Amino acid sequence: MPEPLFERIALLGIGLIGSSVARIAREHGHLAREVVANARTQATLDRVVHLGIADRVELDVARAVEGADCVMLCAPVGAYADLALAIAPHLAPGAILTDVGSTKQSVIRDVGPLVPAGVHFVPAHPLAGTEYSGPDAGFTTLFEGRWCLLTPPPGTDAMAVEKVAELWRRCGSLIEVMEPAHHDRVLAIVSHLPHLLAFTICGTADDLADESRQQVLKFAASGFRDFTRIASSDPTMWRDVFLNNREALLEMLARFTEDAQAMARAVRWGDGEYIEDKIMRGRAIRRSLIELKQA
Amino acid sequence: MPEPLFERIALLGIGLIGSSVARIAREHGHLAREVVANARTQATLDRVVHLGIADRVELDVARAVEGADCVMLCAPVGAYADLALAIAPHLAPGAILTDVGSTKQSVIRDVGPLVPAGVHFVPAHPLAGTEYSGPDAGFTTLFEGRWCLLTPPPGTDAMAVEKVAELWRRCGSLIEVMEPAHHDRVLAIVSHLPHLLAFTICGTADDLADESRQQVLKFAASGFRDFTRIASSDPTMWRDVFLNNREALLEMLARFTEDAQAMARAVRWGDGEYIEDKIMRGRAIRRSLIELKQA
Repeated sequence: MPEPLFERIALLGIGLIGSSVARIAREHGHLAREVVANARTQATLDRVVHLGIADRVELDVARAVEGADCVMLCAPVGAYADLALAIAPHLAPGAILTDVGSTKQSVIRDVGPLVPAGVHFVPAHPLAGTEYSGPDAGFTTLFEGRWCLLTPPPGTDAMAVEKVAELWRRCGSLIEVMEPAHHDRVLAIVSHLPHLLAFTICGTADDLADESRQQVLKFAASGFRDFTRIASSDPTMWRDVFLNNREALLEMLARFTEDAQAMARAVRWGDGEYIEDKIMRGRAIRRSLIELKQA
Repeated sequence: MPEPLFERIALLGIGLIGSSVARIAREHGHLAREVVANARTQATLDRVVHLGIADRVELDVARAVEGADCVMLCAPVGAYADLALAIAPHLAPGAILTDVGSTKQSVIRDVGPLVPAGVHFVPAHPLAGTEYSGPDAGFTTLFEGRWCLLTPPPGTDAMAVEKVAELWRRCGSLIEVMEPAHHDRVLAIVSHLPHLLAFTICGTADDLADESRQQVLKFAASGFRDFTRIASSDPTMWRDVFLNNREALLEMLARFTEDAQAMARAVRWGDGEYIEDKIMRGRAIRRSLIELKQA
């Protein structure tokens, strides 16, 4: 087994992602010698103690980061600015500060200016998740074979970037370094917009008259069931993602809406060729995905 | 084992649904003594022979229905009018004519007037499917525990309705009788609109500049992957569904679009409370689904 990468990793937030990293660190021992878990509530930390997935829990975020050579923000991205403000004076010199947030320009905007000199800030985003949340939801194989995207700002220490990359490789991830703005555009279409649509259609169904709503629940065919699976994800996390990737998300939604209106027009005017062509393109994308072994 | 319900069942169309019914009939023997399969092309029928899932194949649809006491339309709903025209003079007196189409008002509109006196027309819709199509895609457990909705027009012979209900019960389905218009509204929101959205987002992604498109494929997170699974369904079938449930589909899409625009506005203006509330409602629907054991 390789030496642990870090002496002490502090996980600020211990939901699906944080608790999966904690489990990997504790079970494999090659991420860090010591795992410190921090959460907003004592109830969550009590649960972490019960699950036995951290060496130490700390409700005080300043104390959680003290002496840690790796600090990982695993909270909803909307909480990052306050977290960074609270921990900045307590970060150890030479420490690596990283995160797992789904938006990267906002993280660099909110956290970057608060990082003390001598601390290395390496934003990261593991593309992994389930529809479950909380410390019980994590598991050690969550990141296996999944991408982790690193978006270091210009001038970031190359050794620090490599160390974060190695951490995620040890979690089973594939690594890609990417421009933050490009990251946010790509994620807007592959993840954020699909979630927005899924949340929306659930609301649309919920607004139907009572009788129809009962029937919707009763007869939910596979199409709708898949949407509700997506839609059962963590509300705070997704609220923050939407608010922190606003421009890219609104642009992708605008493109999508134009396309949906074009489809509506084809339905109204009976343009079967147009409809069939669009469906064929969906199939082609599906086939590409299968070829790339992502499906 | 109970006696077979029918002497001879003629399946007009032998894709996912038709070939699943054929397999059940042949393997369990309690649907019909003889299974006749019809398809548009000899190639499909050759495949049916190779698979051994029918007693007889007939390229001529008139010959396929001759002497059958049950005729089931299993083709895309857009083909029903022509099929009904071709088979009407050849239907056996007392035969039951049924179907499996996803739209029911259009089926009653297209087929109803062509049904000869003495033939019982019982429209049906088994809510089951996968993203695969063709005679190879069927399997005997496809309908197990899934709803089959019957939408008999007023005055339909009660014994004929019961016989079709019993056929689907023997396939493992749960039965519900429903008004055709109500069926079409419910299906528009639980199935047709989700498919329209899934096809559309695949097209929106496909329209992105080349570099982004490659990244979309590479980093397709779970949200987008679920959409492409839906979007890989049969193009002709779905084209016909959209065109034949136009009014209900356009109404549901209009409601959805209003809701998506409201969500966009909340994102633009930073209304986190609104966004979180919508996500919560999605979760609540998800929970209801799980309680109803449909998820």
